[in-house]
Amino acid sequence: MSRRFADNEGGEFQSPALERLVRSLSRLPGLGRKSATRLALHLIAEGAAAEDLVGAVSEAREKVTNCSNCGAITEPDPCRICSSERRDPTQLCIVASPVDVLPFEKAGFFQGRYFVLGSLLSPLDGVRADDLPFDRLAQRVRTDAVQEVIIALDSSVEGETTALYVQRMFEGLELTMTRLATGIPVGGALAYTDEVTLQRAFTGRRSF
Amino acid sequence: MSRRFADNEGGEFQSPALERLVRSLSRLPGLGRKSATRLALHLIAEGAAAEDLVGAVSEAREKVTNCSNCGAITEPDPCRICSSERRDPTQLCIVASPVDVLPFEKAGFFQGRYFVLGSLLSPLDGVRADDLPFDRLAQRVRTDAVQEVIIALDSSVEGETTALYVQRMFEGLELTMTRLATGIPVGGALAYTDEVTLQRAFTGRRSF
Repeated sequence: MSRRFADNEGGEFQSPALERLVRSLSRLPGLGRKSATRLALHLIAEGAAAEDLVGAVSEAREKVTNCSNCGAITEPDPCRICSSERRDPTQLCIVASPVDVLPFEKAGFFQGRYFVLGSLLSPLDGVRADDLPFDRLAQRVRTDAVQEVIIALDSSVEGETTALYVQRMFEGLELTMTRLATGIPVGGALAYTDEVTLQRAFTGRRSF
Repeated sequence: MSRRFADNEGGEFQSPALERLVRSLSRLPGLGRKSATRLALHLIAEGAAAEDLVGAVSEAREKVTNCSNCGAITEPDPCRICSSERRDPTQLCIVASPVDVLPFEKAGFFQGRYFVLGSLLSPLDGVRADDLPFDRLAQRVRTDAVQEVIIALDSSVEGETTALYVQRMFEGLELTMTRLATGIPVGGALAYTDEVTLQRAFTGRRSF
């Protein structure tokens, strides 16, 4: 058996560099060792694809940033949403992560602005109120004379805790606090809806 | 509607560099736009992962090559298989692509050497005998005094054509020509075996 291993240095390949590339790729989200191997062999065989990828990663790392005003992923700072006069500053949508802005912008119906918290409150993981930019949020609400705060956070324990915290922050102020409706997704089958979702959809039922 | 697009330059993101990275990733095999977006956002958020990937791709591009003797993916040239005295040079396994060497080496049972054709004969795609390294193959068989040529090619029309060509090349020589058995894969269900595979498994049946 020692024969086999002696001839097999550098993993299953005869190349530590290829092994390193496969490992680097398989650490990325959603890529197993098999897909990583397939990608690595493609990148080695197709020089243009590899150069293109290296260039694109480097350029993105250099240029992409977070808006200093709202936290969204952007190149210009402040971002186009914050600097557009067509976006209503008095409607403020609060999301946890910069990624959460994307589905809204893809759908295109929301014409207000965003505030990215960066994280949810999570005492168990050591994320406390002091760690989140609540001061900047309060200031933003004052400066922009926000009239509606829309909370768009996960319906996890951390999401609910954070939503409650934000709600209390603005208690007594002259502004509307709303949150996204919980219910059965469009195209979702009633028979396969979990009990909590079903109960919330029922509680939130609307008349025709 | 023009409002939405005016605020949406740089694709669904506010960043041409991110859009470029997503496109570069989604051109890779097995990655759709969704997985590519997920990877891109991860690479932007995790600087270390991005640096690691760029380094690994660049290093692999620089170091990984094909063995000048057998065509396998390797760093040292000739590869460890060709230069190992423990590998039997008289058993020569013919494969189409450098990738085809990997499953053999992973399994570790084969102690002979390889010859990578680089492609299969495919007159329809303009790949003719002159385009494949058959001269080098013939020379290799003479130099190494090969006693068994094992043909391990796809059982496609192109694979069969190429196998036949190789077989005719060595007709009349004192060497054994074999090919991998066609049959039902280990763990494969008889009920779901296609007719051609079943017939070949039957034809190739062995006594206990």
